[in-house]
Amino acid sequence: MTISPPGTLRSGGTFRVGLLGHGTVGSAFAALLPRQAARVELITGSRPELVGIVTSSRGSFDELLERSDLIVELMGGINPAREYVLRAIERGRHVVTANKQLLSQYGEELWQAARAHGVQLRFEGAVAGVVPVIRVIQESLAGARIDRVHGIVNGTTNFILTEMARTGMTFEEALAEAQRLGYAEADPTEDVDGRDAAAKMAILARLAFDTPVHLDQVRYEGIQHIQPEDLEYADELGLQLKLIGTAERIGEGLSVRVHPAFLYPGHPLAAVSGPFNAVTVESEDITEITMSGPGAGGPQTATAVLGDVISAMIPPASTPPTSQRLQIIEDVVSAFYLHLDVADEPGVLAQIAQALAQERVSVKSVVQKGLGEQARLVMVVHPVLESRFRAALKRLGRLEVLRSPARAIRVLEEEFG
Amino acid sequence: MTISPPGTLRSGGTFRVGLLGHGTVGSAFAALLPRQAARVELITGSRPELVGIVTSSRGSFDELLERSDLIVELMGGINPAREYVLRAIERGRHVVTANKQLLSQYGEELWQAARAHGVQLRFEGAVAGVVPVIRVIQESLAGARIDRVHGIVNGTTNFILTEMARTGMTFEEALAEAQRLGYAEADPTEDVDGRDAAAKMAILARLAFDTPVHLDQVRYEGIQHIQPEDLEYADELGLQLKLIGTAERIGEGLSVRVHPAFLYPGHPLAAVSGPFNAVTVESEDITEITMSGPGAGGPQTATAVLGDVISAMIPPASTPPTSQRLQIIEDVVSAFYLHLDVADEPGVLAQIAQALAQERVSVKSVVQKGLGEQARLVMVVHPVLESRFRAALKRLGRLEVLRSPARAIRVLEEEFG
Repeated sequence: MTISPPGTLRSGGTFRVGLLGHGTVGSAFAALLPRQAARVELITGSRPELVGIVTSSRGSFDELLERSDLIVELMGGINPAREYVLRAIERGRHVVTANKQLLSQYGEELWQAARAHGVQLRFEGAVAGVVPVIRVIQESLAGARIDRVHGIVNGTTNFILTEMARTGMTFEEALAEAQRLGYAEADPTEDVDGRDAAAKMAILARLAFDTPVHLDQVRYEGIQHIQPEDLEYADELGLQLKLIGTAERIGEGLSVRVHPAFLYPGHPLAAVSGPFNAVTVESEDITEITMSGPGAGGPQTATAVLGDVISAMIPPASTPPTSQRLQIIEDVVSAFYLHLDVADEPGVLAQIAQALAQERVSVKSVVQKGLGEQARLVMVVHPVLESRFRAALKRLGRLEVLRSPARAIRVLEEEFG
Repeated sequence: MTISPPGTLRSGGTFRVGLLGHGTVGSAFAALLPRQAARVELITGSRPELVGIVTSSRGSFDELLERSDLIVELMGGINPAREYVLRAIERGRHVVTANKQLLSQYGEELWQAARAHGVQLRFEGAVAGVVPVIRVIQESLAGARIDRVHGIVNGTTNFILTEMARTGMTFEEALAEAQRLGYAEADPTEDVDGRDAAAKMAILARLAFDTPVHLDQVRYEGIQHIQPEDLEYADELGLQLKLIGTAERIGEGLSVRVHPAFLYPGHPLAAVSGPFNAVTVESEDITEITMSGPGAGGPQTATAVLGDVISAMIPPASTPPTSQRLQIIEDVVSAFYLHLDVADEPGVLAQIAQALAQERVSVKSVVQKGLGEQARLVMVVHPVLESRFRAALKRLGRLEVLRSPARAIRVLEEEFG
């Protein structure tokens, strides 16, 4: 008799996913899974199927558990999430969760249960949304001795601070703006007082330092007291104000804390603005790596959750066969910077403009510098097919006024970048 | 009879690692493995042991293969690396490699062999050193439909361009500087002409778009022709010049290319300077995420290789039990910004300075602004234990000249960040 490990893929069949919770992330996941089911099947050999959704007010968890190979927990909060996750693990089901409250308070209990029952408990979505900090700390950097983790792990507060710095608004005004745009919840207390970030830092600290860290052990301070003046002075001094989470080894101890902090412009987190999240991991072995991206949002976090589900479905690192044969394209559209040394005589610009126009290359900006008998023309042209731009360069090359070969460098346009 | 899957962990025993190659990364890995062996044993339950090193001129591969559970290939180049990796796979051994040439030209053959023999072939170190782009694209983003990948994936050229922009040096001068500092090899041809970056982009494109991509299909252009003038104009226009690799879906096609490009300041890759690498992945599902860090270096790349080895040793995502009990530290050292509204009368600054000095809080800079009968003092103090700073704040609170409570915000000092 062969006993398969719990939740293991039955190749060619379906892989049954039971969902707990149907809020922002839950409903985004419920929409994403069927949309990506064919792709997941290509990667894993098995088609994921959403077999049911249970919320705190609707549906039977017991029935869902029996019908599922894996449970995705996106209810949030402690009860009943803690009980459901534990029971799923004990029943031999892999679990994927994005529940930072649960893991920062009951993580050890759940991880211990997962080890004891030989199932996977994955939680990328619990910290920094789709920014892959959990997997990177736990897997990519498993061979490094980490010294410090710095993070901007709350998008609401980063958006508010960015707006205050940009516009001179007060905290209250920027919060109202964040609520209007959906970057802050109706009750933003845990975001603005630092507690949400503290829960995330507790989880990161636990993983980075192999030490049990409970939310209650994280000191945190919020941004409610920040005044527009503070940001004015920061601007004068070239500093950026961010809500920073820190977990760092100090001698034989560990400090985990969250507070507003001014950053010098060279700091890897200084440029992280708006609702983005970012985490920097420092280690003597690696210097530092930084990851950034959207730290929240239904579709983004749902994508992180689906990445975890896929990992639970297959053994790792089996690069799947190619499933597409996209044609390799040689000729693409690009904007260009163009540098021309020309004779400084009447009609030169007209000749050049005409050569460009004949290939429908359109000039966006031009700067001319006289240098005695020569002049230097520097222009940026609007995005154009490269073959067309090359043809224009050929035309330019035939002009006698050109004193040396034209030099062209691509420009990544903002709308293309 | 129980047949273990190939290379599977025998709990409590040793896990035998055979190393191919002993250059910069190979020797760094050979040094790192024993140093981290105890930590790896805590994570995996098994102790990794380096059982032998074979180079192209020394040692028997056949003997090493027989004695190894896993082969780490850090020889580089095609021959004999290709043959050795294939034979290791066929013999049922997991393989970890950092060989971009090999994977960008013979990747499909090797991945197919790994699937056929049920072994892992991991290669995080092949692209961007310790920056975890391979794992993130392959695992974290397995559930996302990727639209575009932009990367700075060659540290030598990024260092040269950064130096040219910073100092006005020519390409040749900056290259010589890079060689002096160890950021460029004696023969830098494949770095500066874009071919090294092209190999890496071929690998990323293959993973992101599930389409076979061979190095020969990547168009590339180097930075040898870049003139100091180009960087001057860039500076005037607020642009950054980088060697950018791009892989993007265009309709039903795929474009993979490497060329210098100007970036607008808001672009996530614009701030990546010196020998660092960075990769941005764009997808409608996730907006974009960016990862950055050292893209080369022996210890850094060896850390990426060790992360792969650990992943090959264990099933994924089994958060290990805590192995340390670092004491949680409450009182840490920090620099502070201090904002004081005071009466504008003689002796105020002296009183404040004295209160700070009594707690040995040392002022780094101070700005005073008069506002009628009041004045505003803004100062930054040198790093100090927070308890001491709090005591100083208490002393300040007792001063009559203080018109409202002092406001303090931490400053991440450059030497602390």
